[in-house]
Amino acid sequence: MVKEASREDRLANISDTEEAVDEVERVKPYQAYLDAELGIRDHWYPAFFSQELDEGETIAEMRLGERIIFKRAGGRVYGVEDRCAHRGMAFSTKPECYTENTITCWLHGFTYDVRDGKLVQILTEPGSNAIGKINLRSYPVEEHNGVVFVFIGDMDPPPPLKTDVQPKFWNAGLKFHPLMRHRINANWRISAENGFDAGHIYAHRGAEIVSAMKIPLPLGTYSPNKEGVVVYDEEGPEPKGVVKLQGKDVQVWSAEIEGQMVVAANVDPNNPPEGADLDVGLYMPCGLEVDWFPKPGMIHFEWYVPIDEHSHTYMITQSQYCETEEEERAFHEECDNVLGPLVWKIPADQTAFPGDGPTWGFNNLDAVGRAGMEHVYANEDWFNRERLYRPDYIIVRWRMVVAKHMRGIQKRGNFANTNGWSPDGKGYSPGKAPGHW
Amino acid sequence: MVKEASREDRLANISDTEEAVDEVERVKPYQAYLDAELGIRDHWYPAFFSQELDEGETIAEMRLGERIIFKRAGGRVYGVEDRCAHRGMAFSTKPECYTENTITCWLHGFTYDVRDGKLVQILTEPGSNAIGKINLRSYPVEEHNGVVFVFIGDMDPPPPLKTDVQPKFWNAGLKFHPLMRHRINANWRISAENGFDAGHIYAHRGAEIVSAMKIPLPLGTYSPNKEGVVVYDEEGPEPKGVVKLQGKDVQVWSAEIEGQMVVAANVDPNNPPEGADLDVGLYMPCGLEVDWFPKPGMIHFEWYVPIDEHSHTYMITQSQYCETEEEERAFHEECDNVLGPLVWKIPADQTAFPGDGPTWGFNNLDAVGRAGMEHVYANEDWFNRERLYRPDYIIVRWRMVVAKHMRGIQKRGNFANTNGWSPDGKGYSPGKAPGHW
Amino acid sequence: MVKEASREDRLANISDTEEAVDEVERVKPYQAYLDAELGIRDHWYPAFFSQELDEGETIAEMRLGERIIFKRAGGRVYGVEDRCAHRGMAFSTKPECYTENTITCWLHGFTYDVRDGKLVQILTEPGSNAIGKINLRSYPVEEHNGVVFVFIGDMDPPPPLKTDVQPKFWNAGLKFHPLMRHRINANWRISAENGFDAGHIYAHRGAEIVSAMKIPLPLGTYSPNKEGVVVYDEEGPEPKGVVKLQGKDVQVWSAEIEGQMVVAANVDPNNPPEGADLDVGLYMPCGLEVDWFPKPGMIHFEWYVPIDEHSHTYMITQSQYCETEEEERAFHEECDNVLGPLVWKIPADQTAFPGDGPTWGFNNLDAVGRAGMEHVYANEDWFNRERLYRPDYIIVRWRMVVAKHMRGIQKRGNFANTNGWSPDGKGYSPGKAPGHW
Repeated sequence: MVKEASREDRLANISDTEEAVDEVERVKPYQAYLDAELGIRDHWYPAFFSQELDEGETIAEMRLGERIIFKRAGGRVYGVEDRCAHRGMAFSTKPECYTENTITCWLHGFTYDVRDGKLVQILTEPGSNAIGKINLRSYPVEEHNGVVFVFIGDMDPPPPLKTDVQPKFWNAGLKFHPLMRHRINANWRISAENGFDAGHIYAHRGAEIVSAMKIPLPLGTYSPNKEGVVVYDEEGPEPKGVVKLQGKDVQVWSAEIEGQMVVAANVDPNNPPEGADLDVGLYMPCGLEVDWFPKPGMIHFEWYVPIDEHSHTYMITQSQYCETEEEERAFHEECDNVLGPLVWKIPADQTAFPGDGPTWGFNNLDAVGRAGMEHVYANEDWFNRERLYRPDYIIVRWRMVVAKHMRGIQKRGNFANTNGWSPDGKGYSPGKAPGHW
Repeated sequence: MVKEASREDRLANISDTEEAVDEVERVKPYQAYLDAELGIRDHWYPAFFSQELDEGETIAEMRLGERIIFKRAGGRVYGVEDRCAHRGMAFSTKPECYTENTITCWLHGFTYDVRDGKLVQILTEPGSNAIGKINLRSYPVEEHNGVVFVFIGDMDPPPPLKTDVQPKFWNAGLKFHPLMRHRINANWRISAENGFDAGHIYAHRGAEIVSAMKIPLPLGTYSPNKEGVVVYDEEGPEPKGVVKLQGKDVQVWSAEIEGQMVVAANVDPNNPPEGADLDVGLYMPCGLEVDWFPKPGMIHFEWYVPIDEHSHTYMITQSQYCETEEEERAFHEECDNVLGPLVWKIPADQTAFPGDGPTWGFNNLDAVGRAGMEHVYANEDWFNRERLYRPDYIIVRWRMVVAKHMRGIQKRGNFANTNGWSPDGKGYSPGKAPGHW
Repeated sequence: MVKEASREDRLANISDTEEAVDEVERVKPYQAYLDAELGIRDHWYPAFFSQELDEGETIAEMRLGERIIFKRAGGRVYGVEDRCAHRGMAFSTKPECYTENTITCWLHGFTYDVRDGKLVQILTEPGSNAIGKINLRSYPVEEHNGVVFVFIGDMDPPPPLKTDVQPKFWNAGLKFHPLMRHRINANWRISAENGFDAGHIYAHRGAEIVSAMKIPLPLGTYSPNKEGVVVYDEEGPEPKGVVKLQGKDVQVWSAEIEGQMVVAANVDPNNPPEGADLDVGLYMPCGLEVDWFPKPGMIHFEWYVPIDEHSHTYMITQSQYCETEEEERAFHEECDNVLGPLVWKIPADQTAFPGDGPTWGFNNLDAVGRAGMEHVYANEDWFNRERLYRPDYIIVRWRMVVAKHMRGIQKRGNFANTNGWSPDGKGYSPGKAPGHW
């Protein structure tokens, strides 16, 4: 612990972010983060959007490698293991619900109460002595602002949901609109880092929203010192996280290569605009909050929820402060007709740039970047080989926060790597397609 | 051996089948069965149906991981290793047969006698000194009632075929009709257990044959004690196996969940029928015999023949006692036009229930169940995690019989897991498609 | 070394090639060759054809497992690692070239000089201190006769290109025409051996070129003693290799099986022709030279360049002595209109013989053979199980030459098996399709 303290002291005394990145890169004080390939355990995670599950229906999702089937019964959502205790069949292969509170395995008729996972009947041997002795794992579930959250872990009771959700998610006056949810073939850490990444703004130049909304998109934007970065790393209230105050950043509007100028999009290089004064925060376990985006008065929420080691559910919900019903109606219309299509235009599994293909959705570009980074991080020891630079300061701080405050590391135990297996062969958590939703 | 004896004594003294399942599940007295992922060695297995191989033609099949090419020459079927001794090319890539009794490798002209596997000529170096020194492995083959059997093992001579075939296969007066043969992506043990399984009758409710033939299908049917189960487990004649006497079973026609009644198909719950008085037997190495099915006078035979660790050939041949040629003709017509389509309606690799898809073939439903169980047994240690119940008594007895009487365990030796490789890229033993045949 | 010498002496004293094969097969004096699954290091390899890369454009190829992006700048071709030092993104995902000599990563704007791999700018943090500290691996490149060669290794400077190219490639008066380049799913050694293989001529009987050009194709052609084989195995000038003098070979025009005669294509068995007097040489690292083919005055060059452990780029360039421009024009026309289509007719990944499919391209047949051999060599220990015969003498000598003279063995180091991963999901080095080019 002495060594730990001295390391933190040393870092605390460095104000230049480039020096800080160099120091962190040398020491890598976030081993627990590197070990958490499958996610961090004993945290709450978004499972899906409320609108995806009607009364009496079921939906199957994998979270951190665990297969879960959710059912809405009496208005509430419940989650149990999607695997019959008898022969291991996934209920979601062919969900059978004879009554409001139960789910029955189609193969041998084992019937469980979804509220607590207890075996209540076996249709092929009614009144079996096994009733009362067998149960499925059951998962704590909460539902707010159109998002269904599930707790993955062993704490009983689980910690409050608010400790694991971006802080402004609870702001008064905000109205919410789910924009999209897709499975992306990249590790959750790669994707969380990419969403928060100061430099990756460069990659969004080709997105249709940039030209359609004439967004003056800088080439880059980063903090030269620690003034532009707030780290929630202390004991006390959660969630823990890192916030980048873009208003205090250096904004890059042009750069020179071999005597040629490269200029940011929608900008007069002789008269560059002021940078957008917005805050981007990344909070544990895996949620992004951008206040504002894409325009003032709107708060943008994203999550990178681990499905397994090599894929995550990418969810975006848009919010806006609305004072009247008219405003709220207009907000939902704008999401459906304008923002949604600008965010997501092409299939989730398309990760190659076509020669003369479609204009890209803003977040489709992130998906392409993640697939490419996933390859080297998963296969080429890239956490040890990467060469980070000044704008990555917020990312190394994020890694340190997670390593320090995670409640646990998810490990494969009694469940297997499914290698894409799912009841319908399409893989768990495919989200909705096509289009942006 | 003392311990073994006392274990058997203890089990012998338990008459209640649920207690017996609990006892067996605790001790798992069938380790050799758990080790036989690739099948049991030194047994006879069905290879294909006679009608699939004409004079002079060849067919390639994999059995227990071994690639075999069969040729019919002079009316008889012969089988040799489907791999040239020289460069390892599969003959089946492009079978060349210059003469009745030979097969030639298309790549360098190595030519072998299919009757004994001996190298008899090399077209690219005629009269080579290698002739007489090189030979392929050759396999014992027998053909009866429209089924071609092959012996996988080292015993020379092999044991009599009859020791490895269901006993009524030889009954006088029976006529045979092959109904289907398909590759199913599940381990042979999962599938044999599923075919024999007392409780899985519940899963067949949705099959078209049940409504089309108005079969009063119980929810379940099981033996509460050992009177309904005959175990052929003693020294003496083979084949060894387990038979379930359904006439002595409890028949379940309804069950209650949360106050709601679930009722069997085609049954008046106030006046349930008597159960069908039929016998279902599972015999080593992997054959099912149902006397009768689907109606009295018909005996139904199935096999679950290992292809590799994760797939098997699923074969069904139907039989009926016929006294006249007219009866026989009508039997074949009924198989072609009625039974076949009711047994198998959708492609073998379709294992997801479509929302509003086609009505299912009776045995297609088994294929779906097997794929789901295969996942957890192959990947999630399910042989150790499964929670069995009373109707599984016949299954644990089957496991004990196989573990006790198997002649050997198949292991990968000089041949590799092909991971689906085959000369045409479609995998070995695809059977015939589409349709039920 | 005494043992080594005595082994060589023993082999030197055997003049009969069959005895020599037996001796070599017993001792296997080429372990380094067996270890070189990923290729031999510190050699020059063909990368692609000149015509595939225009000024200012880029092309990505994998060689011996290393991902390389090539750019033509100022007429010259340069090659650097196709992986940004920062986050590991492949430049080829979306190559950005703002200036003649640079390439920029689309994700964070890291910009490198392709001539030496040095980081020269970061668009998202212009003037970063990282500039000058970071660089990509850069590869020596040379371009001759329409072929771009790249050096894979660590020698600085690399050895002369001529030490790694077939000797007649430099012959005065030769004009060159690239015929095809395709990715084949087989190890480079399997394919080099297959290209040189004396016996595999039998497999070409079905090719359209054989009937179209009425080529009297022998069943086989081999050296009964060492007179027909020249081994370049001594100290001194390179490249090292083995040459088969077909004019001194036994030519097989017919052979008998069970009393039936099998006769070579386009031959009167009672009056067989003299064999073609041509030389076939295989040179390190992986190049074939046939003088002449398909007709006198033409020299045929092939390469089997390792992509990864289980695939190679198969390249063919045709050459002809031309004295006038008219001759040269006619040569290119013949290549485009006649030879190309006869060499390659079907897609590279089609490796199954269709029942009644198209007539095959001459070299398509090689691709089929390689895929079949690859399976057993990669998975079934076939280098230890193969049973070689007299015509394989040239192959075992080739193995010995490579094992003795290779400069190094390629091993996976900081790069991973990509399992077919590539920026566009289609795999590296797909070559051009469809058609023969």
